[in-house]
Order: sequence, then C-alpha cells, then structure tokens
Amino acid sequence: MAPQVETNLSSITVLTCSKCGKEHDYEILQRVSSCCAMPLLAHYDVSGPFSKEDLQNREGTMWRYREVLPVLNETYKVSLGEGCTPMLDLKNLADAYGFDNLKLKDEGQNPTGSFKARGLSMAISKALELGTEGCIIPTAGNAGVAMAAYCAKANLPAIVVMPRHTPKAFKEECYWYGAEIHLIDGLIHDCAAEVRKLNQDGHLLDVSTLKEPYRLEGKKTMGYEIAEQLQWQVPDVILYPAGGGTGLIGIWKAFQEMIALGWLDKEIRLPRMVAVQAENCRPLVDTFQGVHANSQNYNGLPTLANGLAVPRPLGEPLMLQVLEQSGGTAISISEDDMVEGVRELSRKEGLFVAPEGAAVWMAARQLLKQGWIQPQEQVLLLNTGSGQKYMENIEGRYIG
Amino acid sequence: MAPQVETNLSSITVLTCSKCGKEHDYEILQRVSSCCAMPLLAHYDVSGPFSKEDLQNREGTMWRYREVLPVLNETYKVSLGEGCTPMLDLKNLADAYGFDNLKLKDEGQNPTGSFKARGLSMAISKALELGTEGCIIPTAGNAGVAMAAYCAKANLPAIVVMPRHTPKAFKEECYWYGAEIHLIDGLIHDCAAEVRKLNQDGHLLDVSTLKEPYRLEGKKTMGYEIAEQLQWQVPDVILYPAGGGTGLIGIWKAFQEMIALGWLDKEIRLPRMVAVQAENCRPLVDTFQGVHANSQNYNGLPTLANGLAVPRPLGEPLMLQVLEQSGGTAISISEDDMVEGVRELSRKEGLFVAPEGAAVWMAARQLLKQGWIQPQEQVLLLNTGSGQKYMENIEGRYIG
Repeated sequence: MAPQVETNLSSITVLTCSKCGKEHDYEILQRVSSCCAMPLLAHYDVSGPFSKEDLQNREGTMWRYREVLPVLNETYKVSLGEGCTPMLDLKNLADAYGFDNLKLKDEGQNPTGSFKARGLSMAISKALELGTEGCIIPTAGNAGVAMAAYCAKANLPAIVVMPRHTPKAFKEECYWYGAEIHLIDGLIHDCAAEVRKLNQDGHLLDVSTLKEPYRLEGKKTMGYEIAEQLQWQVPDVILYPAGGGTGLIGIWKAFQEMIALGWLDKEIRLPRMVAVQAENCRPLVDTFQGVHANSQNYNGLPTLANGLAVPRPLGEPLMLQVLEQSGGTAISISEDDMVEGVRELSRKEGLFVAPEGAAVWMAARQLLKQGWIQPQEQVLLLNTGSGQKYMENIEGRYIG
Repeated sequence: MAPQVETNLSSITVLTCSKCGKEHDYEILQRVSSCCAMPLLAHYDVSGPFSKEDLQNREGTMWRYREVLPVLNETYKVSLGEGCTPMLDLKNLADAYGFDNLKLKDEGQNPTGSFKARGLSMAISKALELGTEGCIIPTAGNAGVAMAAYCAKANLPAIVVMPRHTPKAFKEECYWYGAEIHLIDGLIHDCAAEVRKLNQDGHLLDVSTLKEPYRLEGKKTMGYEIAEQLQWQVPDVILYPAGGGTGLIGIWKAFQEMIALGWLDKEIRLPRMVAVQAENCRPLVDTFQGVHANSQNYNGLPTLANGLAVPRPLGEPLMLQVLEQSGGTAISISEDDMVEGVRELSRKEGLFVAPEGAAVWMAARQLLKQGWIQPQEQVLLLNTGSGQKYMENIEGRYIG
C-alpha cells in the first residue's frame, strides 16, 4: 500500500545454466543457455543489506521484493499492479471434506485475470531494459493475454500464437491490446513451432516458458508472498496446476532463496509440492510414474483447463527435481472432475475459478482420501486464474 | 500482506438519517431510515486509540481500516480479498494528451472483477452478523455477481434481479454461485420494483444501493486507500463513474473521516469530484445542470456501461452535496466515446477496462480540453471494473 519506490537495487549477480551450471551474463538479453539449450536461472547476492523487515512499507505488488528481482532500474519496470494476491481460508470446503486447515491463494485477482501477469510483467520489463524490437509467444491463452497487455504498456509490438480452439475471450482481449494474433490447429508445442518460423531471424524476443530467464523470476514471487502471508512459515502441502511448470519451479526457488537470505529458518520443513495435471494431458505424471522416460514425444489432448495442455514442457527436469526434493507427487484430474471443482468452489466459497484451479482442489480431495494428505496438515491450493475467460468451456454446467 | 487480524475493534457509535440527522441503532438490521426513508450514514468514535501508523502491518485488503468499519466481530467477516487495488501511472496517455500527472485506480482487480466487491463484502458481513434469512438485490450486473459470490461464501440464499439485456457473463457467473436469478424487461429501477414484489414480507435483506447502510462503508475504503497510496495526500481531481453513486459518496465520506481522525491535514484542499455518466442515462447531469429539479421521473436508455443505467438514484441528494462541497462537476459521455476509451486504455496502457472506466477517461480528456482541468493538476481516474464481462457489449470494436 506504500507508494512506489523511486530507486531499484537488484542484487542479481549471475545467470547459470540449469543443466550444467555454467555462468552466463545477465547484462545482455538471454534466451535458453548457449551451452545446453536449457533454462537459465538467476542468482542474487543474499548477503546484501536488506531484510524482511524492509518489506513493511513497500508497495502491495510483487515488486516489494525488488532486491531479489532482476530489474536494475525502476525506469524499466512495466507494472499493472501484479502480485500480493489474497490467501483465503476455504472454511466451508474444509468442513465438508475434513481438512483442518485449507487455504487458497487467488491468482485470478491479478491484472489480466491470471498468475501469468507476474511472469510477463518481469519478462517485458527486462526486455525493455535490455532492448528489444518486440516480443512473441506461443500460448494456451493466459500468457498471451498478459504478454499483449504488458507489451501495450511498454509500447512494444507483440505477436501471440495460440491454438484455434482457445476460448474467444482470450483472443478478443489480445486484439484489444493491439497484438498480432496467429491461430494454429494444434496445441502449444505446435504454436511454438510456428513461433520459430515467424521469428527465424530472431529479431523478436521469444518469451516462451523458460526460454528466457525472467518469467520465472516473476513467478517465484508467489513463493515469497506465501511465506510472508504466513508470517514466514510455510504450508505442509502446496498443490499447483503444472502446465509449463514455471510457478512450481519458481515457488521452490523462492523457498531456497529465503533460506539463504535467512528469511526462513534453515531447519524449516518445506512443503511437499504437488503437480496437478489434466487426464487429457499428463506428460509429467507419466514421467513421474515411470510410464515413459520423459515427455519429449508425448501427445496430449485439449482440456477445459487450457493452461494444462502442455504436452512437452521444457521445464520437466526442473519440475521433477522439485517433486523429488520436496517429497511431492504428481496427479491428474478428469474433465468432469474439473467442472465439479468449479461448481464446488463457486457454490461453497464464492470463487469462480479457472478449471486449472478447480483441478487443484479436486486433487486435494483425492489425496486426502488416499491418505497422502493428513487431515491436520496445512494445505494450500494455488488458483492460477479467474474463470471468466473460460466461460465458453463450461457454459451452463453449473448444474450437476 | 500481513496475516489476518484475529480481533476486531470497530469504533462505530451510531447511524444517522442522511436527511434529518435523526439517530438510529446500529445493533439491529437497518434498511433506509425509518424517519425519512432515506440512506443511513454510519459514524465512528474518531478519538479512539488508533492511528494511521497502525496500518503498517495490516493485511492488504480493505479490512485494514477495521476501526472505521462497522463489523464488530471478526467471525462474521465475509472476505474474498477485496480492496488494496493498485494505483497506476498512465504515462502513455498523459504524454499523448498533455496531463502532467494522470493515475488510475484499477478496481477491476477486485474479487468478482469490480468495485462492487467492497460494498457487498461489507453488507453481507453485517447481514451475517446481525442475522438474516437471505439477501436480494436489483442490479445492472456487477453488484449482483458480487452479492451472489459473498452470499455463497456466507452460506446465505441469494436472489438477483437484473435487466434481461445484461451481458450473459454476468448472469452465468451468478448461476455458478448458486443464486436465483430473475430477468426483467427494463432497467434497474424496474428490477427494484420486482424486488419489492418478491420481498413483500421483508424476509430477505434488500441490499439495493443505499437502502442499507453498509455497502457505503465498504465503498468508502477506496477513499482511505487513495490517501494512503498517496502518502496521506489527495489528488486535485477525482473522476468517478456515477450510477447509484455509492463510490462517489463513500470516497467523500472517507475524506471527511480522515480529517476528523487527523490522518489528513485539516487545511488540506480536497479533490474536486467529477461524476461521470452516460449520454444515454444522465439523470444527475441533468439535475446538476438544472434541466430538471431531480431525477425522480427521469427515463434513461440502456448503455454499454451497464452500471451507469441508473435513471433514478436514491443517493442523488448526497451526490449533489459532494459535487457542491468539492467544487466538482457532472459530465456525460457518448456510447462511441466509451468504446474509443476502452480502445485507448487497452492499446496504450495495457488495461482492458469496463465501459464505465473508459467513460471516466474520456471525461478527463474533455475536461482538460475545456480548461476545467489544468495540465499540471494531479488527476485520478477510477476504473470500477474489468472489461471481461462486458465483452459481448463491445465485441470486435477493437478496430476503430
């Protein structure tokens, strides 16, 4: 709630390849690592003269964590007020199903109606700071809308490539922002192929998930907020809808950084992280369960949760690391169950969530029933977006 | 960002009739004043032991101002995370049109996508605290959606009465929350007549604008936030889309309270308040300009800005008071201009706003051109909602 800060003091030190660890320069525009063609990770000097007490008078956006964010100069911050979303008690559903402590962080209250605002605000800010002619993105919907909005604010040309079957509300909003839209028959990896074709000469920055280092830095602020909202404690279990997986990876990265910063106790028991996917597209679940070695040739089907239709996520190795390190798991949810989840969250908690968020709730129900979650554990659901733009997917199904 | 408070210490002392000043009890459910059938206003003990410094560690919702809010007991707080919306610099539009300092407070980032969340969160909380069987509302759209959501969270039955021509997105979302919907041929005052019919025996709480005292108390938190976000200063001019007018009245009420509390300097020059209406429905503009003595027999037409189609607002006398006391004005905007406003805010600022918010921007442009606003003045636009639910009203009109 405090006014915007006038200076910025990022403590970024270096980027490293997530595969081989090689160091890369953060002062130039980077894509995937030049060594292994894998995602780059940002590192910060955690010995800096800032503490969690400094947060008290900071603005109520994700930019309150500026020392551990990559933007060097306030001038380039492209913000629509993203972050600091509420964490809500789901008392009615908790009582109905036997959870002692069930919460939901509602990312639908971000600008453009989804968690994608965090990553794109950060990526577009850095693109502006480091200089680019424009941006291009393959998207299942929300990321494209967010990129179009932040590019409009930054005066940068934007090209959005999305599946033709994406609900109209996503497309229309992109048009309003003045983006150029390409519609593709297929899923997001087919859109990615089109992006490569359209951007063969590389004159645009490709802000595909994890193909540049900074969307991850925006997404990780969810992790910082979770800890701050719980007074520097963490839940026992976090359930997250994992398509590209940046949020899952980002939240975990935030926890590691906060331990290094001394903001979380180094003996703290971190949450078990649960990746939630759709039955129709469950590449990570299949890898986690050993059905295939990896998802590089996986073929998925469309799903009501458009954001989960990501058959071959580049971040799969990083997601698997998070599941392993945290003692987490991966689970998939049917289309009908998602609709039931939307219905329950609307009727019982007054939250009209995206099918992705509904999938997460249904996963919590299943894991409690299976005994993987204990009733007395503190469980946090991440709802990644508002249900509004998905209305066409679930029209009239409020009766069930 | 701090965790939710565990106790509540409202300093409410009494309700008074806005017409004759007679005192009324705040410990029972109240509708309009029993003396004059006019809106009731809540008063607080401003000598209490709380200060603006106490806000520092409070949660990032409107409930941070709990001492000057009417809910007595935390148990009854029905919250979805409303309030603490961002205040954004509109640098691109300011540069293009010659404003030195142009800001927008984006109420579209509230739960259910509009400023109505504030008023309904407060009204439903008080309804729960004081005991009611259920709630009923006539609405142009957003208030009905918000009431349905908060009633779902509070386990209260909800009846929503709205014009048949309201965009489908509003209706569908109400159904998801489990509300009973009635569709009426006409505008909101025709819906109000239907509400009176449906609730003849008064078993439901009628939460029509200003017909109970607490939606106003939720809305006024916008005023508190404006001052807090500007470090206890205020803008020179605030432009507000005035349908029922609760926000306009509420912001002004907040300024008076903050002066009484000592949070604003008592010599402060308060903003000139501008009520923005639609050409199609401009009852207040006509009264302000002396076209008619009051709007009690005014007939309006539907407008793209559904929330502005309020032909006979109960709060008209209070709105006129605000305009007079603040040295403000009233202005109306055409349908085409609203669409141009949506287009400009989307393309230049990355904000897909409701036509109501677009009207406010176009009003600022006109008032600058007319010399009523000076270029060096600090101008604040209130955008009351996201454009998403209005998509059907403006479909395809991103080209212009």
